[in-house]
Amino acid sequence: MKNKIVILFSGGMDSTTLLYSLLDSGNDVYALGVNYGQRHARELIAASEIAKKAGIPYEIADLRSIANLINTSSLTNKNIPVPEGHYEANSMKITIVPNRNMILLSVAAGWAITLKATEIAYAAHAGDHAIYPDCRPEFIAAMVNAIQLADDLQVKLSTPFKTFSKADICKLGNKLRVPFDLTWSCYKGQDKHCGKCGTCIERKEAFELAKVQDPTIYDNEKI
Amino acid sequence: MKNKIVILFSGGMDSTTLLYSLLDSGNDVYALGVNYGQRHARELIAASEIAKKAGIPYEIADLRSIANLINTSSLTNKNIPVPEGHYEANSMKITIVPNRNMILLSVAAGWAITLKATEIAYAAHAGDHAIYPDCRPEFIAAMVNAIQLADDLQVKLSTPFKTFSKADICKLGNKLRVPFDLTWSCYKGQDKHCGKCGTCIERKEAFELAKVQDPTIYDNEKI
Repeated sequence: MKNKIVILFSGGMDSTTLLYSLLDSGNDVYALGVNYGQRHARELIAASEIAKKAGIPYEIADLRSIANLINTSSLTNKNIPVPEGHYEANSMKITIVPNRNMILLSVAAGWAITLKATEIAYAAHAGDHAIYPDCRPEFIAAMVNAIQLADDLQVKLSTPFKTFSKADICKLGNKLRVPFDLTWSCYKGQDKHCGKCGTCIERKEAFELAKVQDPTIYDNEKI
Repeated sequence: MKNKIVILFSGGMDSTTLLYSLLDSGNDVYALGVNYGQRHARELIAASEIAKKAGIPYEIADLRSIANLINTSSLTNKNIPVPEGHYEANSMKITIVPNRNMILLSVAAGWAITLKATEIAYAAHAGDHAIYPDCRPEFIAAMVNAIQLADDLQVKLSTPFKTFSKADICKLGNKLRVPFDLTWSCYKGQDKHCGKCGTCIERKEAFELAKVQDPTIYDNEKI
């Protein structure tokens, strides 16, 4: 069935694969990017290019003006360096942006209600980390409930990848011919993916585990 | 006990009374106003004056840049007139701003987590109307749950007025010497309160029912 769906779209490999999956099922998709002052606003350019290629509407919610209220993360505060190494490390906590996902989902829900969309799609997956409270399944379940109650339209928050690993997403994306070369993951947001931060390491691992060729040019490839 | 509390503060009589009540209990209060492109942004000036008088920090989250995504309400779209008459009328539905309260609460929660506050206070009350889905008790309960799960700090969303009528709030405010003359309700946001829109009618009624002198100068007083 063709549904009108708002997707929370970062331009990364997860939400891009979700976007292609929704289009593959014949849905009418509206993509929402959010500029919350992230150091890697580079991802918004990636998202814009992908949406253009996919031929769907793409809007950016500009929340830079509230960045000062939630400015304790290395993702938004340029004075705090982005940690390197695998995500599991305790040091990755510094990348938490206070209540980021609720803010993003609430804006997406507002737009969905305005468009009379029936659904918000969000690419949360099983590999999301417990260090991020707002990625945990119990938080997502609470948001499903809150969004449904927020308007008489009873918009549904769907997370089709919640049982998928990032490698599973990579496999599906490969099958759907997702342009992975256009997607952006790196938290540092420079010209190339750094290859060292938590997201870069996971991106690489996902391609390796999925046995899909990684088209990414990493800055440290020579090492 | 002295708690650090973020209050969602519109400068109206409900949130101003809540502010004074929290200060009366010795709490450390931070007030958050939100500019979401509302026609009655006049309320932000009222809020600023009240916060200054109360000697507490006041921040405005500027969300005007997302107004285009949620622009179906007479409160944000200047091409749609504000309806007059009592709130119960079906026509008041045009004043609904899609998902407004979740957006406001999510930003307040982000700031609360940043400040390491333990609580967000919100002046929802028993007189809030069923036409606004995001004022209903079940929505508030869902947000209490979602906000608690959004961070390991487990910030509490409190609504001390949830069983109060607006007249009850007016009585309490009178007792706490709330400067009602500085508060702002009117949706039209002109120089004076219009006296005809839903909020103005309720404001007047609250003072009458509470038997408290109404210091408001209404534009239609001569009628």
